[in-house]
Amino acid sequence: MALYVYKFGGTSVGSVERIKAVAERVKKVHDQGHQLVVVVSAMSGETNRLIGLAKDIQQSPSSRELDVLVSTGEQVTMSLLSMALHDLGCPACSYTGSQVKILTDSSFTKARIRKIDDARMRKDLDSGRVVVVAGFQGVDEDNNITTLGRGGSDTTAVALAAALKADECHIYTDVDGVYTTDPRVVPNARRLDKITFEEMLEMASLGSKVLQIRSVEFAGKYNVALRVLSSFQDGPGTLITYEEDQMEQALISGIAFNRDEAKLTITGVPDLPGVAFKILGPIADANIEIDMIIQNIAGDLTTDFTFTVNRNDYPKAKEILDSICSELNAKAVTGDDKIVKVSIVGVGMRSHAGIASTMFKTLAQENINIRMISTSEIKISVVVDEKYLELAVRALHEAFDLEHKPQQR
Amino acid sequence: MALYVYKFGGTSVGSVERIKAVAERVKKVHDQGHQLVVVVSAMSGETNRLIGLAKDIQQSPSSRELDVLVSTGEQVTMSLLSMALHDLGCPACSYTGSQVKILTDSSFTKARIRKIDDARMRKDLDSGRVVVVAGFQGVDEDNNITTLGRGGSDTTAVALAAALKADECHIYTDVDGVYTTDPRVVPNARRLDKITFEEMLEMASLGSKVLQIRSVEFAGKYNVALRVLSSFQDGPGTLITYEEDQMEQALISGIAFNRDEAKLTITGVPDLPGVAFKILGPIADANIEIDMIIQNIAGDLTTDFTFTVNRNDYPKAKEILDSICSELNAKAVTGDDKIVKVSIVGVGMRSHAGIASTMFKTLAQENINIRMISTSEIKISVVVDEKYLELAVRALHEAFDLEHKPQQR
Repeated sequence: MALYVYKFGGTSVGSVERIKAVAERVKKVHDQGHQLVVVVSAMSGETNRLIGLAKDIQQSPSSRELDVLVSTGEQVTMSLLSMALHDLGCPACSYTGSQVKILTDSSFTKARIRKIDDARMRKDLDSGRVVVVAGFQGVDEDNNITTLGRGGSDTTAVALAAALKADECHIYTDVDGVYTTDPRVVPNARRLDKITFEEMLEMASLGSKVLQIRSVEFAGKYNVALRVLSSFQDGPGTLITYEEDQMEQALISGIAFNRDEAKLTITGVPDLPGVAFKILGPIADANIEIDMIIQNIAGDLTTDFTFTVNRNDYPKAKEILDSICSELNAKAVTGDDKIVKVSIVGVGMRSHAGIASTMFKTLAQENINIRMISTSEIKISVVVDEKYLELAVRALHEAFDLEHKPQQR
Repeated sequence: MALYVYKFGGTSVGSVERIKAVAERVKKVHDQGHQLVVVVSAMSGETNRLIGLAKDIQQSPSSRELDVLVSTGEQVTMSLLSMALHDLGCPACSYTGSQVKILTDSSFTKARIRKIDDARMRKDLDSGRVVVVAGFQGVDEDNNITTLGRGGSDTTAVALAAALKADECHIYTDVDGVYTTDPRVVPNARRLDKITFEEMLEMASLGSKVLQIRSVEFAGKYNVALRVLSSFQDGPGTLITYEEDQMEQALISGIAFNRDEAKLTITGVPDLPGVAFKILGPIADANIEIDMIIQNIAGDLTTDFTFTVNRNDYPKAKEILDSICSELNAKAVTGDDKIVKVSIVGVGMRSHAGIASTMFKTLAQENINIRMISTSEIKISVVVDEKYLELAVRALHEAFDLEHKPQQR
């Protein structure tokens, strides 16, 4: 007998029929004698409907009241799923974040979970009930309703799995697992049986948006075995877990990419201490998130400073740089918002040389010019012109033979 | 500076525009320096939408889960009203039944309020905030969400007014007060400035459905001054309060009627002890509510036993009587589902003779045959054929001169 936490997202519970299908799936596992906690999101479209109502009333609603409002979405789903389970003769009981209780800080609309009281769930599970919990929400010390921010239901599921020491946490989505890259770009992309937390973090933050990053961090921190599966078809999905010796040892697990990049360069900056802060400080003050940062010493006591931002933030960032250029005695500000980032990710590269050179050789053979390079322990990212994105991803996918399962070594 | 509890029903908060109008009204009173607690219902149509979803999932959903589901309706309204107040620069904070907290018993879908903790509201009021509270809902000892049953938001408002010792509790509806009778039947029906709790109870239970009966009982018990007003037009409404010496002393305050009546008679029942229970026991067991009961001794050691039920329950009740008729050695079962009840209500009749005879004379002059009569301290009810309803109400309204304000005596 195992204890599982399942999480179903908005499209998985998007209609009465879908909710009934989820209930069927849950009942089947319950009938096998397993204990189940099911975390649900709002029915797809509901959160946007509620936010629309709020916007009709007030341009920038108070975040406390916004949380009171949108948290009703998950509450509706959880009661409906509970009813659907009852209808199948499966005992179940639903709980809000306040009832469970999921204690958070008071950062409305982006609260962080502090503590979960598992007593009530444990009692229900031991008496044979399926426990249905509203995702995305909690309460602060003063019993104010909070929400965890977009995708927060994944985090709720992982946090509950950690609190209950569940055997596995299953995230049901509209894809059947994590792939070596986006199948829309590389049709023979392969579903991974396993991936490490670190790889998943790099894949997620680089644009493979299967799971919310925070939930992966959380799962890694509390060692919760996380599995991504499809709620519409059967299959083992992808297990996200710690690296093990017997694990399939691919050099590279996958190729991630991000289309929404733009790069900015300020050239001929006198190379004095504190110059990086002088450039990036005003950018951060404008709430613009910076991704890659590269600094080259040109040799003549000046430096070229390049960084990337989200494409939406490009005009604003350019404006800020232009305004501080003369103050810094820099030469010029240049930029490009037609670039993309392509990254290869894999824990295997930690222990194997030659990965980077294979990557650069592959891109060179396709005549793709590399505009920026950035590396970490388990990933290498390059910035290339937007038009080369698909070509680069396909070539790298083939070069690292990702369509085939790696040999056991 | 006064403390008011306002309650706005579903049509009063039925759209974003209506919610904004409510906010305007509330702000105006707040600006005058008064303290305000505002109780809101779900936006009109929302509760039915939610119940519809539930019925699509399960024929008879668990009452606990149903309460979890429908309680979201008020939660949405309260957050939207709070935002609308913020938008007008009026400080406000919203609370669910769980947050306030409104402690109830565990009778899901028809819970009764046990206790209200006013500390949090009091703190907000003292700091100048408008407190917005979800009507209709509470929590039981185990923090399960409960609802108070149809019209329960009125009860929430009165209970909060009692707990906070509010100066007045205002119930905003789509009518501008309590009338001497239904203006659709008698066009010159008059709005009452005041009515006693007891009269209101008789009016409400007899079909003048302005207020939920329970909220009137509650207001009477805790001596909460209750005022019924229109949320769409200005005006003093009708104050429901205790009888005072200086109060306008009408003999009759109003005429109530109920179209949904049916009567059943079992004739020739041997008049033995326990016969009433033998007849009404099976009716009660079938969850059929009985209204009037009349028993006549025919003189030959048998009795005729007549009672009225809601018209919907008539076929079922008839079937039950038919089945016990021979067991009781009774003669026959007869019935009529084309009857109505017309009642005159007024505390004044306690101290004035001749009211009943005026009523009967008036009906006789119109050739209306009285089928049953029942009286209480402050009301006289008659059952007449359905076709005479409008005629009877109009004739009585004129006979007791209800279109004119009573003279001070």
